[in-house]
Amino acid sequence: MELKVIAYARNGHTDKFGIPRQSREESPIRTRIVFEPEYRVAEALRGIEGYSHLWLIWGFSRSFSSHTSSSTAGDPNSLDWSPTVRPPRLGGNTRMGVFATRSPFRPNPLGLSSVRLIGIEQGDLIVSGADLLDGTPIYDIKPYLSFSDSHEDAKNGFAEEHKEDRLAVSGERGDVPEGVWEDIIYILSQDPRPGYQDDPEREYKMDYDGWKVTFCVQKGTVLVKNTEKI
Amino acid sequence: MELKVIAYARNGHTDKFGIPRQSREESPIRTRIVFEPEYRVAEALRGIEGYSHLWLIWGFSRSFSSHTSSSTAGDPNSLDWSPTVRPPRLGGNTRMGVFATRSPFRPNPLGLSSVRLIGIEQGDLIVSGADLLDGTPIYDIKPYLSFSDSHEDAKNGFAEEHKEDRLAVSGERGDVPEGVWEDIIYILSQDPRPGYQDDPEREYKMDYDGWKVTFCVQKGTVLVKNTEKI
Repeated sequence: MELKVIAYARNGHTDKFGIPRQSREESPIRTRIVFEPEYRVAEALRGIEGYSHLWLIWGFSRSFSSHTSSSTAGDPNSLDWSPTVRPPRLGGNTRMGVFATRSPFRPNPLGLSSVRLIGIEQGDLIVSGADLLDGTPIYDIKPYLSFSDSHEDAKNGFAEEHKEDRLAVSGERGDVPEGVWEDIIYILSQDPRPGYQDDPEREYKMDYDGWKVTFCVQKGTVLVKNTEKI
Repeated sequence: MELKVIAYARNGHTDKFGIPRQSREESPIRTRIVFEPEYRVAEALRGIEGYSHLWLIWGFSRSFSSHTSSSTAGDPNSLDWSPTVRPPRLGGNTRMGVFATRSPFRPNPLGLSSVRLIGIEQGDLIVSGADLLDGTPIYDIKPYLSFSDSHEDAKNGFAEEHKEDRLAVSGERGDVPEGVWEDIIYILSQDPRPGYQDDPEREYKMDYDGWKVTFCVQKGTVLVKNTEKI
C-alpha cells in the first residue's frame, strides 16, 4: 500500500532531542496538524469535536534514522529494520524484539500516538501530548474510542517499571516566553538524556521553539545553565 | 511511504458480515497472526509476552469496498476516500466527517485495533478481540502501553450512546463445534445487521469458520434458524 501524506505536524520540537518517548496526556506541548491542500476539507472534520482524544498514525522521519547513512536520510523507506533493538528505557544495552517496542527501526516506520484534541483553528487541528518532531508526516487521524481502545490494566512488559521517572528542574526563565518555558520545564523533567547517561559534569544542548537550552543533570535535578534565542 | 505486508490475519471471519465494528476486549474470537517469511524471525518477538495487549495497524481490504467497482476490488489504493461518511452506528443516514469515524473510506485505508495477546505458537502470534477479516494484511504490531494509550474517561463523540447495545441470542447448536458456537453467539449478540434494519421477517445469512448461519431478529432477540456446514 502506498501511503499519502494527509497533514504535517507543526510544533516547537525542531530538534529530536527532547521529544518525549511516548505521547503523554499531561504534556502541555501543543501541536498544530496542518492538512495538505487535498485533505483540507472542513467537512472531513464534522463531528470530531465530540471526541476528547484522537489517534495519529504518522511516519518516523530522517532525524530518527541516526544509524542510517546520510545519503539515505530523508527517505522513510530507507530506514533499516532490525529484528531486535536496544530501548533507551532499558539503558540502551538490552536487546528486545522490535515488535515488543515502539522503536522507529521497524519494517514499516509508522508511529502511533494518542493526543488530546484542543480544537480546530482555521481548518487545522490543535492537539496536545503529541510526541512528534516538527514536520512529521501524518497518514491518518482517527477518533479515540474508550470502549475499544482503553485498557487501564494492561501489562506494560519491560516498560512498566520506568514509567514514573521524573526529574526536578531548576533554572532561570530569562527572556524565554512563559508558555515556551513551561514546555521546556516539562521536557527536561522527562530526562531527555540519551540512554540514561549519568555524568553530572556533562552539558547538553536542546533546541525548542526557537530557543537553545543548555543544561546538566546533577543528583536527579536538571539545572538549566543557559537559554539563548536561535 | 510504501508499506510492506509483514503478516496476515487468520480467523473464522471469512465473511465481512458479522465482523464487530470495533475490537472488543471481551471478544472470544481468536486470530492467528501469520508472519510473512521475511518477518518470521523469533528474535523480533523477544519480550512481547510481557505485554497483555498489542496494537495492530492493518489494511482494509476489497470486501469492505462495497461501493467501488469490481474492476478495482482487491487494490487497497483504489478505495475512494470521502470527506463524509454515514456510520452504521447512526443508522446509516447521518453524515460525519471521515476523521471523526473509523470508516474504511479514508485517504489511507488503515485500520487500528487493540487486541489481547494470548501467546506465541510456532512463530505466530495468537490474539483475541480483533475486528479483522480473515486474510487482512498487517503492517505493524506494537506493544500497548497503558500509561500513554489508555484514556478511560475519553469522550466518545457520537459513538458514546450506542456502545452498550447487545442482543439476546437463542437457537440450537446442532453439529457446530462448541468453540465455534460460542464465537457465533458472541457475534450475533452484537447485532451484525447492516444499518440497524428492523424487519422481524427478514432472514440473514452469515458465514463463520466454515459454517453458514441463518438467523432473524425479533423483539431484540436473535433467533438462529439454521446452521449448515459449508
